Amino acid sequence: MNGFEFQCGTKMIFGKETELRVGEELKKQGATRVLFVYGGSSIKKSGLYGKVVKALQDAGLPFDELPGVVPNPRVSLVRKGIALCREKGIDFLLAVGGGSVIDTCKAMSFGVYYDGDVWDLISGKVKPGDRRVPVADILTLPAAGSEESDSCVISDETTHTKTGFGSPLMRPVFSIMNPELTYTLPPYQTACGSMDIMAHAMERYFSHTQNVEMTDRVTEAILTTVIHNLSVVLEKPDDYAARAEIMLCGTWAQNDMTGCGRAQDWFNHGLEHQISGFYDIAHGAGLAISFPAWMEFLCGKEECIPRLAQYAVRVWNAEMNFDNPEETAREGIKRLRGLIKEAGLPLTLSEAGVGKEKFEEIADNMTNGGSHTCGAFYAFTRDDILTLLEMMA
Amino acid sequence: MNGFEFQCGTKMIFGKETELRVGEELKKQGATRVLFVYGGSSIKKSGLYGKVVKALQDAGLPFDELPGVVPNPRVSLVRKGIALCREKGIDFLLAVGGGSVIDTCKAMSFGVYYDGDVWDLISGKVKPGDRRVPVADILTLPAAGSEESDSCVISDETTHTKTGFGSPLMRPVFSIMNPELTYTLPPYQTACGSMDIMAHAMERYFSHTQNVEMTDRVTEAILTTVIHNLSVVLEKPDDYAARAEIMLCGTWAQNDMTGCGRAQDWFNHGLEHQISGFYDIAHGAGLAISFPAWMEFLCGKEECIPRLAQYAVRVWNAEMNFDNPEETAREGIKRLRGLIKEAGLPLTLSEAGVGKEKFEEIADNMTNGGSHTCGAFYAFTRDDILTLLEMMA
Repeated sequence: MNGFEFQCGTKMIFGKETELRVGEELKKQGATRVLFVYGGSSIKKSGLYGKVVKALQDAGLPFDELPGVVPNPRVSLVRKGIALCREKGIDFLLAVGGGSVIDTCKAMSFGVYYDGDVWDLISGKVKPGDRRVPVADILTLPAAGSEESDSCVISDETTHTKTGFGSPLMRPVFSIMNPELTYTLPPYQTACGSMDIMAHAMERYFSHTQNVEMTDRVTEAILTTVIHNLSVVLEKPDDYAARAEIMLCGTWAQNDMTGCGRAQDWFNHGLEHQISGFYDIAHGAGLAISFPAWMEFLCGKEECIPRLAQYAVRVWNAEMNFDNPEETAREGIKRLRGLIKEAGLPLTLSEAGVGKEKFEEIADNMTNGGSHTCGAFYAFTRDDILTLLEMMA
Repeated sequence: MNGFEFQCGTKMIFGKETELRVGEELKKQGATRVLFVYGGSSIKKSGLYGKVVKALQDAGLPFDELPGVVPNPRVSLVRKGIALCREKGIDFLLAVGGGSVIDTCKAMSFGVYYDGDVWDLISGKVKPGDRRVPVADILTLPAAGSEESDSCVISDETTHTKTGFGSPLMRPVFSIMNPELTYTLPPYQTACGSMDIMAHAMERYFSHTQNVEMTDRVTEAILTTVIHNLSVVLEKPDDYAARAEIMLCGTWAQNDMTGCGRAQDWFNHGLEHQISGFYDIAHGAGLAISFPAWMEFLCGKEECIPRLAQYAVRVWNAEMNFDNPEETAREGIKRLRGLIKEAGLPLTLSEAGVGKEKFEEIADNMTNGGSHTCGAFYAFTRDDILTLLEMMA
């Protein structure tokens, strides 16, 4: 186990009808003027919009609205929100939605106190300062884990660049999590969200750091819980218990508790950010394509086999083949692909309508034209990435 | 899963030599005058005392000292510390030690801002306010989990009363955790600490709340990790990796993450507080005696068998006997007793030098003279407690 620092002070308010408490909680946390940020019509259709408005009014909290957040959230809206915050004297941001909405608020949060263009912060050119407008959220999509994480991902739609930044001050002050709000998620979005949760767990799990028994086991707990409950909610979308388990897993997979004391990988997220920068593909769908292929690629790398085999045994209940652990590893991949297929997610780029035309550019972007490698569990060269992309095709 | 709120903002600073950063971290957190609280000579023998003094001096932080904390920490020292804080204008408490030292600081922390006697707060007569002197710690004994918990336990040595109180503001601001500092713990104290950690996990695990899959699995992760690594450190006290796992388990078992959304029990802690109020017995040793006996008692209660069997299968790798799950449950208890014995802890009160003379008084205290029951997973009557105490004798 490596040395580490960990701090996550987000208050989780979890359970039925907790969204009704948003006004009182914002007030308790010192809000005096709120910007209510959301996506499109779905929260109006579901009635959540009206409940939030009423809760804010009942608490006597003046607020403005910023709708229009889209998946792979855009820096243009972040800029608009920053201007609005300054103009209206906003002192609390309320995100109502999934990771895209929360990430938009997180970027605005620091952007308000930065004199230059917010892309300087997002792209890492300038470090975020220690002032920010606090963020809270009502989560409607368990996936990104942004409700407790200390980072955000934003896209520049003009340059097809998707990147992110973080700060210990970026974690939301509180997150309201009512599993009932996720009943209406369509099966595809539910599956994409669960795949994202699993990916967050796996990005941390695949590590060469020795003696990480506890974080291994907690990660396995998250993975087995998501796997079981995804199957349940695909059958029965309004199963409260299963929705609750997935929601809790989404938070714990990404608040970095399971990353304590270990090297993390993040190759697959990097690759997916490239792909969804060029193509209109859901983040979870991209991860569903890349992760099993990445594992399959690593079956050819001796040093990666033991952990892939442990994953197969402990997460997928595969039998350990002591004479041929690679076979065990491959059994785990097979079972992961089985779940992905059952969940209606794509297994290849072509299924997702993604062609080969950007492969070279993606490999270049990830390796700075071939001069760097990418990934910690295995360091991919430019050629490795091209091989992997062909495997994903 | 029940609704819940959870928030734990303690910063964990974990790893080798992290104690050297205590001065700079206190300063970063706004300390200007520190009270350095500890137990006896052990931190002087180990050299930790000198390192802390140097770190405080290097940071230019004036400090006063309060030594003399004993196991089952006493309200008399808490009172002395409160007077010292007021006299010296202390604005940060630094606990260096285990749960007794941290709990002493936690009680002082709120006592400083309370006009009456601090026992009013400890006994629950008066609710703690929202002002407190912040607490930080350097942990030397993984056991109580006080380094992240929101509660403390204090004894009144004049009345043999051991009780506690809590507040969301009671969690330490930061905790420095260097597993190397636990190398010198004697085997008996190491075993008592691990038993306490396991007890914190089990007090939450034994619950009738349905659909608690994720917190079940994380609790099982903690238990299996402690069980494995306790055996390792008893063989090799300076095994860094194993000491690190136990330390991390101690924190996660008691910061209440695993208690999210479920009814908790706490009967065994209540019973142990009674016993150690009357007798000089280590907290972990008391729990080692009571927990397996409590489980054995519950083997006679139909409604408790399924969870006891799950515990046996998932934590102790027992085979599930579908025709007779009680037998599976008993196998789990047998294996728990095996570990307790291997660790050199007592299995009966007589082994620990505790007689039967206080049985009636203990049963009275726990049930208010027989008018109440005690415990959530199973509600013990006065007679049940007497039966259990005979089983523990």
